[in-house]
Amino acid sequence: MEYNKGLHIICDLDSASTETLSNMEPFKKLVEGQIQMHQLTSTGSVFHSFPNGGFTAVIGLTESHLSVHTWPEFGKATFDIFLSNFMQVNNGACEEIADAIQKYFGGQVSQIHRLQR
Amino acid sequence: MEYNKGLHIICDLDSASTETLSNMEPFKKLVEGQIQMHQLTSTGSVFHSFPNGGFTAVIGLTESHLSVHTWPEFGKATFDIFLSNFMQVNNGACEEIADAIQKYFGGQVSQIHRLQR
Repeated sequence: MEYNKGLHIICDLDSASTETLSNMEPFKKLVEGQIQMHQLTSTGSVFHSFPNGGFTAVIGLTESHLSVHTWPEFGKATFDIFLSNFMQVNNGACEEIADAIQKYFGGQVSQIHRLQR
Repeated sequence: MEYNKGLHIICDLDSASTETLSNMEPFKKLVEGQIQMHQLTSTGSVFHSFPNGGFTAVIGLTESHLSVHTWPEFGKATFDIFLSNFMQVNNGACEEIADAIQKYFGGQVSQIHRLQR
């Protein structure tokens, strides 16, 4: 049987909101809310703030992972979310979480890729 | 100034080595060695083993992140590594680490993507 591992969405954003790009705690709450809403399971997470105000986060999920890196000094954020379809089909959840993160940071998508893995 | 955030390599592997796909500790050592060798800085990591023998890992780096997910029951592994070029150009390190992980799991690359972010 060929196993479709799942959808991986990889996105770069240009955002003028220095505050959103610098402020880690509200982003952490957004992600925790999304994980709960979509009934995903975190295996643990690493959040790290930089002295210049950017932050970086990786969240392990039993369904794969989510990452975000922000560069407020350049008005940019990158994120990726990969949800496997092992226990249930998570393609819809993957799209919805990507959409929620885009809306959260605002601004424009400079590139987005959807990989079927 | 346009800022080139860095190279993101995303790779799927088919590997017949159930032992390598199931055994988290040697992989952890490999990654720690690669981080040290390429003078990268970990912000923390999450390693998680599944009852079926697969494992999942996300490693936060000040330079971005690395993730791996294995499915020994399907003979598959996926990984991605994203290294930003903020402090130094890390494209070479990104390629070398991706190569080391491919060699570690053995088998065949079923898809690989190189995104300039």
